[in-house]
Amino acid sequence: MILYFIFVKYGGEDDHNIRGFEDTHVMIFIGFGFLMTFLKKYCYSALGFNWFLAALVIQWALLCQSFYHMKDNTIFITKKLLLEADIMSATVLITFGAVLGVASGLQLLFIAIVETAVACFNFWLVADVFKAADVGGSIAIHAFGAYFGLGVSLLLKPRKTKTENAENTATVDLNGPSYTSDVTAMIGSIFLWIYWPSFNSALTNSNSEYQRAVVNTYLSLAAATVTTFVLSSAVSKHHGKLDMVHVQNSTLAGGVAVGSVCNMHITAGGAIAIGIGAGLLSVLGYRYLTPLLTRVGLPDTCGVHNLHGMPGVYSGILTVLFAALATKEQYGVELGGVFEAMKEDGSARTAGSQALNQFLALLVTLAISLVSGAMTGYIARAPVLEPLKDNEEYNDEINWELP
Amino acid sequence: MILYFIFVKYGGEDDHNIRGFEDTHVMIFIGFGFLMTFLKKYCYSALGFNWFLAALVIQWALLCQSFYHMKDNTIFITKKLLLEADIMSATVLITFGAVLGVASGLQLLFIAIVETAVACFNFWLVADVFKAADVGGSIAIHAFGAYFGLGVSLLLKPRKTKTENAENTATVDLNGPSYTSDVTAMIGSIFLWIYWPSFNSALTNSNSEYQRAVVNTYLSLAAATVTTFVLSSAVSKHHGKLDMVHVQNSTLAGGVAVGSVCNMHITAGGAIAIGIGAGLLSVLGYRYLTPLLTRVGLPDTCGVHNLHGMPGVYSGILTVLFAALATKEQYGVELGGVFEAMKEDGSARTAGSQALNQFLALLVTLAISLVSGAMTGYIARAPVLEPLKDNEEYNDEINWELP
Amino acid sequence: MILYFIFVKYGGEDDHNIRGFEDTHVMIFIGFGFLMTFLKKYCYSALGFNWFLAALVIQWALLCQSFYHMKDNTIFITKKLLLEADIMSATVLITFGAVLGVASGLQLLFIAIVETAVACFNFWLVADVFKAADVGGSIAIHAFGAYFGLGVSLLLKPRKTKTENAENTATVDLNGPSYTSDVTAMIGSIFLWIYWPSFNSALTNSNSEYQRAVVNTYLSLAAATVTTFVLSSAVSKHHGKLDMVHVQNSTLAGGVAVGSVCNMHITAGGAIAIGIGAGLLSVLGYRYLTPLLTRVGLPDTCGVHNLHGMPGVYSGILTVLFAALATKEQYGVELGGVFEAMKEDGSARTAGSQALNQFLALLVTLAISLVSGAMTGYIARAPVLEPLKDNEEYNDEINWELP
Repeated sequence: MILYFIFVKYGGEDDHNIRGFEDTHVMIFIGFGFLMTFLKKYCYSALGFNWFLAALVIQWALLCQSFYHMKDNTIFITKKLLLEADIMSATVLITFGAVLGVASGLQLLFIAIVETAVACFNFWLVADVFKAADVGGSIAIHAFGAYFGLGVSLLLKPRKTKTENAENTATVDLNGPSYTSDVTAMIGSIFLWIYWPSFNSALTNSNSEYQRAVVNTYLSLAAATVTTFVLSSAVSKHHGKLDMVHVQNSTLAGGVAVGSVCNMHITAGGAIAIGIGAGLLSVLGYRYLTPLLTRVGLPDTCGVHNLHGMPGVYSGILTVLFAALATKEQYGVELGGVFEAMKEDGSARTAGSQALNQFLALLVTLAISLVSGAMTGYIARAPVLEPLKDNEEYNDEINWELP
Repeated sequence: MILYFIFVKYGGEDDHNIRGFEDTHVMIFIGFGFLMTFLKKYCYSALGFNWFLAALVIQWALLCQSFYHMKDNTIFITKKLLLEADIMSATVLITFGAVLGVASGLQLLFIAIVETAVACFNFWLVADVFKAADVGGSIAIHAFGAYFGLGVSLLLKPRKTKTENAENTATVDLNGPSYTSDVTAMIGSIFLWIYWPSFNSALTNSNSEYQRAVVNTYLSLAAATVTTFVLSSAVSKHHGKLDMVHVQNSTLAGGVAVGSVCNMHITAGGAIAIGIGAGLLSVLGYRYLTPLLTRVGLPDTCGVHNLHGMPGVYSGILTVLFAALATKEQYGVELGGVFEAMKEDGSARTAGSQALNQFLALLVTLAISLVSGAMTGYIARAPVLEPLKDNEEYNDEINWELP
Repeated sequence: MILYFIFVKYGGEDDHNIRGFEDTHVMIFIGFGFLMTFLKKYCYSALGFNWFLAALVIQWALLCQSFYHMKDNTIFITKKLLLEADIMSATVLITFGAVLGVASGLQLLFIAIVETAVACFNFWLVADVFKAADVGGSIAIHAFGAYFGLGVSLLLKPRKTKTENAENTATVDLNGPSYTSDVTAMIGSIFLWIYWPSFNSALTNSNSEYQRAVVNTYLSLAAATVTTFVLSSAVSKHHGKLDMVHVQNSTLAGGVAVGSVCNMHITAGGAIAIGIGAGLLSVLGYRYLTPLLTRVGLPDTCGVHNLHGMPGVYSGILTVLFAALATKEQYGVELGGVFEAMKEDGSARTAGSQALNQFLALLVTLAISLVSGAMTGYIARAPVLEPLKDNEEYNDEINWELP
């Protein structure tokens, strides 16, 4: 509050008409919140902590982000700034998904405050230093949030001996859905899916760029959805049965995968191809990779690695590819927002140089998120943050008055 | 994907600002999806298949619809095209409602692919050949989807002898709601209700036409809702108790009934009168007609005949009436979009001729939908589509890994 | 219907593009509806009656409100009029929350019809006679609805002796949530939270006023949310556990509290301070005041006094403060909509005179709502409205066919 009184003033009228604000809002609070209600006894915590963290991070991120763009030590607050803060809060919520049910309330609070500051710094690197194309935030939001979360998950809990693991079976039972909780999780999943085109296109600059972003995201999501259903049935252990985890999550991977390139001229067929790839990557990840990671001490409750991590990296690699393939006359025209940034300072880049910058942006994001996540996780072991005992995991009982 | 690579290019900027896209989106995926979760053990399938079918049909319908409007063998994809594909997917989802819990996954896939192609052809007849007024799609979407579904339902299963019916009581128990599933169904129902004005007005051309469509749809829905509650209590078997089935469905009939005429000058009182009529028609249909149809071998799980079928026909008849009553100076001015189409080719129609065309559009829609639906249902009996046995109906067990 | 045929015509094109219509719609039907599903056996009634009452009141309020602005005995209906009717229906739904589970269907119908007429009269006093600033309706909608509801609650049931109260324990068990009903209530709560900025800014006139309203409401809500979580844990009886009632309701108090001043230049820090105050007021109200009121014969099922009542009064007092503090050059420029009204009739007011009018508007609203609410409650005891017996309270059984 004090920082707001000192630094923040109302901005101009220019940004009152931005698109996608309400839609992104629904994704953050309904989408992420309900998606994480899939655990049978952790619905209150999923919804409550999601809400608390997002409301807190929005206020905090607005300051952190604007720190890099202040004029005369004043932040001019606009609807667009709120939108960017909304988008930033997604990073923290993705990380929350990785340690859902495992981290205590105070640990989450600590993680959120640290992560927001680091993520805003990384966002500034990607956008302003590397001037990388990342309109839907697949690099700076999704990949960052997922790998930060995996870093936290790696060091949040002391390593157990095999015996300890075997003894602790009661907790494991709560780490799964009930029939009803899977249905409420679908509320979140479908709303995320519906408004993803608004999310990816929210920060576009021109009408044609906006329309490309909407169309490409939509087609990629639709393709990923169809792929998810077909593949989920194909890799099933029980006679072609569908798995709700895949349906709730892998359907969305198409939105992440197309995120960084959705405003470019990737063609409708290209968008569908990207979506199919995302569906494949994500379902196979849930089916084979996540159990493996859990076994080597890297649990990931929501499987954010399959929904945000790998598809985010995939999207980052696609930006390298499309930047490298761009012909000269496409600069600033064909490639959507990619080369917009360079116009400002007059220093045009070659396709190769832009591709290199895209690659560096991705690499730096992965490095910063993993290292800072792991450090944050390690520090969060501190007893003052009240870490959960094994038998308190995945359980609302600890934090809520239950009926 | 291959067809998209060959035929589809990005369209112009013109349609970036169309209304109702996100709202229609919510109706298709949240609205239809959750409305069909009312069955106690079929929530996963309702949500999952709804999503899968819609995501598939949107891609397929975009091609089918555009086939009639290609220039130089190229489809120029815009946000408006996506919206029209969204709207078309409603047709398939209505049909899904008629055979909910009775058709297998593969049968649904087959039905969806065939129906989309036929429905796009019928849509072209209604819009481009008959040049009929049908802005909210009550004829070409709602009536088509419902009667196609009834056609499928008629021939999907071999006729049973009375004895077989009597023996099979276990299944019937699953064909009903639980307390929780009725609540989640309300999510779908209310979102459909909320965004129906956006649906009906999405394809209007002028601002005044848009505003009329919103106001009329809204009033008709409100009137149908009040009528539904009053009538549901009045026709109840148990001391005036309300029936959730009526509340979830008949409240929406006002949106269907006013659909084809909502952009015309029907007056606010007229809109309310239409809504009251729709509520009456729909509640009485659920109470008396559906049990009768089920007994004669025409089951209709969601009662789409009462929500989309009869109200759609009702709306079609209203267009005949309003077209016939139009005075000369109303052409193209007073009647909203009705005579818009004729301006293009310069061939003005008389009121009588337009009324005749409206009537033919309705008649042709009913004929095509019923016949093609019945044929599709009959073909879908093929063993390769894995028809369900009686004891597998209305049950998620067959298709899903359950917790 | 008859009144609509006589009085209502389509309005001009001017208001086709108003903001916030669909969002407010979601708040009324999804937001209020699902928020009230928190009772374990009253979900059908909460959703059903909410829908029925809102659909009815919208039609009735549109007439009542327009009565004060008719030209040539004609109401010109526009999308903006529908929005205003939507907003007015919130008043009745707030009152519904106060007597949730206690009033019968017929009693609710009677209350709704009377309250709408009185509330429209009061709204006219506030807006047109006192020309008070109240853009988000915290005075004329929230405070009115809450205190009308408390008035009804006070006299709806005959006073009981202590013995009668003690005997009746079966009913009390139903006056509480289940695990699932608390989750569905969160759907309502979060959607209300998400679209509150749209609600408060819907009736702003300029772009900068609109942006201020959005930003201030958003920050106030976020601050109230963080405050609610911290305080709910702090005042808990059981080792810092969170209370779902606080989370579902007090988080929203920030939207009410900032409502009447959100379009003014209150600064971002000011908005956060207001939100913190609202969270404090509301959580403490739920924790200490509501149990007290219930004991003295003023039950308030949803605690609307803590969510709409006190925060509404708080917002009213803030308008007095900000009006009194306004410097001369701020008139009509700095203070947003406050002095807009006075431009019309040319009679400029001093800051003191405007502050006085704000105060009177608040006072008159409280007086009218409490007195008319109490009278309505007393009349609603009439046997013809079928009052509930004690053992019929909080129970869907009375009104619904249950599965």
